[in-house]
Formats: sequence, structure tokens, C-alpha cells
Amino acid sequence: MENCIFCKIIKGEIDSKTVYEDDNFKAIMDISPAAMGHVIVLAKNHAEDIFEMTEEDLSKALIVARKVARAVKDATGCDGVNILQNNGLAANQTVFHYHIHIIPRFEKDNVKINWEPLSPGMDDISVMAEKIREHI
Amino acid sequence: MENCIFCKIIKGEIDSKTVYEDDNFKAIMDISPAAMGHVIVLAKNHAEDIFEMTEEDLSKALIVARKVARAVKDATGCDGVNILQNNGLAANQTVFHYHIHIIPRFEKDNVKINWEPLSPGMDDISVMAEKIREHI
Repeated sequence: MENCIFCKIIKGEIDSKTVYEDDNFKAIMDISPAAMGHVIVLAKNHAEDIFEMTEEDLSKALIVARKVARAVKDATGCDGVNILQNNGLAANQTVFHYHIHIIPRFEKDNVKINWEPLSPGMDDISVMAEKIREHI
Repeated sequence: MENCIFCKIIKGEIDSKTVYEDDNFKAIMDISPAAMGHVIVLAKNHAEDIFEMTEEDLSKALIVARKVARAVKDATGCDGVNILQNNGLAANQTVFHYHIHIIPRFEKDNVKINWEPLSPGMDDISVMAEKIREHI
């Protein structure tokens, strides 16, 4: 897609540090990483978010993500890995081309991927579950 | 697996609010949600993390996650959705049975899923990329 920075990276019009590539995906180093070794897996077919992905790409995405995550773990010696995919500005998506973050984690690092959990009552949870089921 | 709380939920030995279920996955309400409408998608076959998942389950996981995410979006009217899967204690995994978080996000909510990016030099990124490529 014109003016999409990730499409340009995929076509090689903008330079990147590639760690893996196949017919459907290209995995590159994130240049504003949460931690050293942070990789993003880009779908080659432009899709803004998970809702626009083809079924084929979606079925292959985590196979690639795991392959990359294993290599990131081996290369960095990290203690854990977050696999994160953001949809929408409110979810901190910054480039509107589907990509999966592979984030190496270390004990006591400064990455914030957590939350203060709410404590809803079971009645509220049941009502919400019913609403979601209606939309499945 | 014995003593795994998610295996017990999948078998119905512990109650949960289910929003979706098929042969490979069960999606339930998170009872300590980041936001109302937070769902977790559990693999029915016990795997501790992404590294232990079967290829079949991995290829189906995001198809289910998207189905659930769409319903969560429709039911909550949220502005965005994070799809997050944690591997290891250092990555904030709390139950060691593979699950994907579907987190509805709202503008100006209090969920912390971001980071202060590092600013490594391109030389350091190149060295790390080479290390990761060697392990792919």
C-alpha cells in the first residue's frame, strides 16, 4: 500500500535488519525496541490489523512468531518472551500494517506489559460473557 | 495435566464463563480483567507456552483469537484490542498453560501495554540481528 512504511520495508525501498523471511512474512529488528532483541514479524500482504488478515496468513503467523521467538530466546538468553499484537491507536498500534511484536523479557526489566486487574463481581462478568457470546 | 487450573476449567471441574468453544480451544472471561470484556483463549491440549504448542493448535489459535476479538469489540464498543500471549514468569505469565489475552482498549484507559523505547545504534542492532539469524 502506498505510503505504508512497512510495505516499503517489505519491498526493500526502506532498509531494515531482517532476521527471517518467507513468502508471507518478513521479520525485522524493531528500531525502537523495548529490549535488545525485540523483533517485529510483518505480514507481507498489507492488512491494517488482525481483522483484515487473510485466513491463510493468520494460520501461519504464530508458526513464524514461534520460530523467531525461539531464536530471540537463544540469541539473548532472555528469561521470557511476550508475543503482542496491537489493533487500533487506543491499543498502542503505531503503524497500521499488521505486525507481531516478539519481546524478550528479563527479570526485573522496565517493560510494562501488565495491568492493575479490576475486581468485577461474577454477575457483571456473566452479563458481559452473555453479550460477547451473542456477537460470536 | 494434574493440578493445572486451566486444564480443570477445560474439563469443567472448575466453573468459568465460556464465550466460545471448539475442539481445540475454550475462550473464557478473565476473572481478573484488565478491562471489562477481557477474554482468554485457552488451548485444550496442555502446553506450558508457545514453545510446547502443536503446529496444528498454533495454526488455529489466531483464527479463534480473531473471532473472539471481533465479538469483544462488538459487545464492548472498545476503540482497540491487544492480542497478548506471555511466555515465562519474567514475561508476566501467571498460569503455565498456553493462553492468549484478548484485551479491549479504550482511549485514555489505565492499561499499561507499552514501553520506553531504547535508542540503540544501528551497529548494535546489526550485531543482534546477526546473532538472531544464526539461531533461526
